[in-house]
Amino acid sequence: MSAQLPEIAKAWFDSVEFATIATIEPDGQPQLSVIWISRDGDDLLVSTVAGRRKHRNLERDPRCTVLLFPKDAPYSYVEVRGTASMTLEGGRELIDEHARKYTGAERYTADDGTDNVRVVVRITPDKVVTH
Amino acid sequence: MSAQLPEIAKAWFDSVEFATIATIEPDGQPQLSVIWISRDGDDLLVSTVAGRRKHRNLERDPRCTVLLFPKDAPYSYVEVRGTASMTLEGGRELIDEHARKYTGAERYTADDGTDNVRVVVRITPDKVVTH
Repeated sequence: MSAQLPEIAKAWFDSVEFATIATIEPDGQPQLSVIWISRDGDDLLVSTVAGRRKHRNLERDPRCTVLLFPKDAPYSYVEVRGTASMTLEGGRELIDEHARKYTGAERYTADDGTDNVRVVVRITPDKVVTH
Repeated sequence: MSAQLPEIAKAWFDSVEFATIATIEPDGQPQLSVIWISRDGDDLLVSTVAGRRKHRNLERDPRCTVLLFPKDAPYSYVEVRGTASMTLEGGRELIDEHARKYTGAERYTADDGTDNVRVVVRITPDKVVTH
């Protein structure tokens, strides 16, 4: 049973707000990182690089949790507990889209000259809490 | 072996920045919440209420992870993986101190008229990553 995002949470994920994602380390302790984010309906979309800690953690255990609070209204927040599915397809397009959204750049250039393989992390919400 | 906070992270935890804490749910999935925070040396101090989800999670598994990124410099961050110890002693003083720091109020009034029992969560860092 997937959960739905309230309209206010959709608006936050559509805006230029940074979010935090928690994945699960091999020993069970949460690993946190700051992320660019967007959405497709109720699913959240995050970009990562194949082989990075986040990617390895999600391959082992696809459960993850995302929290966003607006920078100028930090007493509001949305917490999404979800399950990630990952694909290489569209990986380049997603990071370019996020770079445009967050930096205004035409494309994401920090992967240039690297052998980074971009992964699309699609997070389907299982439970959503908004305050 | 506890870890130390770099000077830049100390400055962030001393300032009026909101942080995110991850605790571990009974099923292993991370639970995230937005928190007021301060520090005592290298230890982080967080206030919660006895019986709340965060408190119950930390009683069962004291491992937690804190992430802070400055609201106006979100490409910098500190991630602290730590272990929490909890005490009721000083619980009222800590939440009043945080209210002064974050809101300028003389004391924390939202507990007035409730039977909230305030808990001091002291997080000793095991590993610190700063970027």
